[in-house]
Amino acid sequence: MREDGPVTSLDPAVAARLKRDADGLVAAVVQDADSRDVLMVGWMDDEALHRTLTSGRSTFWSRSRQDYWVKGETSGNIQEVREVRLDCDGDTLLVVVDQTGPACHTGDRTCFDADRLL
Amino acid sequence: MREDGPVTSLDPAVAARLKRDADGLVAAVVQDADSRDVLMVGWMDDEALHRTLTSGRSTFWSRSRQDYWVKGETSGNIQEVREVRLDCDGDTLLVVVDQTGPACHTGDRTCFDADRLL
Repeated sequence: MREDGPVTSLDPAVAARLKRDADGLVAAVVQDADSRDVLMVGWMDDEALHRTLTSGRSTFWSRSRQDYWVKGETSGNIQEVREVRLDCDGDTLLVVVDQTGPACHTGDRTCFDADRLL
Repeated sequence: MREDGPVTSLDPAVAARLKRDADGLVAAVVQDADSRDVLMVGWMDDEALHRTLTSGRSTFWSRSRQDYWVKGETSGNIQEVREVRLDCDGDTLLVVVDQTGPACHTGDRTCFDADRLL
């Protein structure tokens, strides 16, 4: 699909460091800058990362809807991006944000609140 | 490959809630219990999750080596598991650990220390 990256304005020096999965995506872990809670995990292709870096709003690729989505676009529960880091493997991003309202679409503060296995 | 889950002793009630990718895996975000730093992201199949839940040591599936690995098995930089949570989508785990030594194989404290994009 997008293994070689889509048409995007992402900085080529950054794009060259990404190790995308078969669908051209990297995982993006979103962490709250203040509480330091892990809020959610989304997926980004090159263009979603470019938009996240340049717009200051975290932007993901929806695997189910096959489209971009800006977190909070409809709910108002936006994420203002303070920091973006790439891991040592190049296949995961850490996005540190100021979260407005609950991060989870269920209304929970984080997407990890509801189901504790251990 | 392992879409239907491997032969594993993972609690069927937990296995039924997992939404695995095409390779039978879910992402596992590892967070330090004390510093609350996001340390790394690994991948787990049903059996890796079972071992993580029952052994108290975080255990992953290596996509490159196609084998299980216990974090710190060779380096000594083990992760003692304090908490495991499943996200609202069932496709990501949050593993909260007591980390011994640096979490990254590069010697960095976390896998996100070296490459800041924003």
